[in-house]
Amino acid sequence: MDLKRKISIAVIRRLPRYYRYLSDLLKLDITRISSKELAARMDITASQIRQDLNCFGGFGQQGYGYNVELLFNEIGKILGVDSGFNTIIIGAGNMGQALANYGNFEKRGFRLVGIFDVNPQIVGKRIKDIQIMHFDSIDEFIKNNRVDIAILTIPYNATPAVAEKMARLGIKGLWNFSPMDLKLPYDVIIENVHLSDSLMVLGYKLNQKYRRQA
Amino acid sequence: MDLKRKISIAVIRRLPRYYRYLSDLLKLDITRISSKELAARMDITASQIRQDLNCFGGFGQQGYGYNVELLFNEIGKILGVDSGFNTIIIGAGNMGQALANYGNFEKRGFRLVGIFDVNPQIVGKRIKDIQIMHFDSIDEFIKNNRVDIAILTIPYNATPAVAEKMARLGIKGLWNFSPMDLKLPYDVIIENVHLSDSLMVLGYKLNQKYRRQA
Repeated sequence: MDLKRKISIAVIRRLPRYYRYLSDLLKLDITRISSKELAARMDITASQIRQDLNCFGGFGQQGYGYNVELLFNEIGKILGVDSGFNTIIIGAGNMGQALANYGNFEKRGFRLVGIFDVNPQIVGKRIKDIQIMHFDSIDEFIKNNRVDIAILTIPYNATPAVAEKMARLGIKGLWNFSPMDLKLPYDVIIENVHLSDSLMVLGYKLNQKYRRQA
Repeated sequence: MDLKRKISIAVIRRLPRYYRYLSDLLKLDITRISSKELAARMDITASQIRQDLNCFGGFGQQGYGYNVELLFNEIGKILGVDSGFNTIIIGAGNMGQALANYGNFEKRGFRLVGIFDVNPQIVGKRIKDIQIMHFDSIDEFIKNNRVDIAILTIPYNATPAVAEKMARLGIKGLWNFSPMDLKLPYDVIIENVHLSDSLMVLGYKLNQKYRRQA
């Protein structure tokens, strides 16, 4: 059953959250759940859940609910958890190191295979079991290793040129932490992370609730 | 004109992105822009923009477009940029340090007023002009300083207890980086950051486009 192409990007953006909640349910040995119960846990409406998960066909049954493991596995497949991605981190500053040490990525199919920096005081050090390499050696590394995703945790001004270099070297996915909506005239998929967007939403909610004076 | 309460959270979540693009336009000395031009820059539809920005009343005019500065200022007000928030970071590991060094938060009204950790090797060091304090002193600090938001960049297992302590000390906003949907039985607003969600969407798009074999 190939349903992938019919699913809108808005639904896709919600899938990782379903995946997390289903993963938690599995850990609690909960094998099935109704849309109503799942909705209460996730703080969304049951009708939103039914609408989203209907994209995947027959996992919800009237009077039974969802089979947690089936749904978890199906969402994992859609998201590519089972196929696995080789990633490299470019920029081993604080953000790069924080991401390198973050165990959850590996669980979701993202293997870290290399870390690069230009700072001679950092190159050669180890994060987990990976020795930080000099950025000068990246062409050769990518030639000799499959790399699907480059994670860019580098200074703002350096980001466009490094991103373009990655695209020219044939990397197909970029995860960019510089606060810009990076676009490239190459066949490459870019996800831009804007941490301040989330913080601004928090600020909005605080202002709404507590109506503080300017 | 008090329009704040009518705006849906879905629109609010898109506002920081408008704010960023309008800020870029101002830097380029662009004083007005049509919904069509803005749509092209932002990779969304003009009708989405008109629908979103209609929430703010008379900033778009037929044949004129949007007044960039007016719209920028109005969105900033809605998001509380002008009122300003005092924030503290709890956990001065890599992620905490990365956020402390991130200049964009200050520009958006989030002043960092304190950094806390429990590690004696870190306590006393400085990040920018702020000396890292021991977490034991946080009760007193919050008693003597206005703190609106606590940024939690601490280990997973420590997060619920620290979050609850913050809520009991009267902090009204938590920005949580532990991979959990933190909920508390307190009158506190929580934004949970799930970095892996964004990475999983990138993985999905890669799989869709390049249809890699499992």
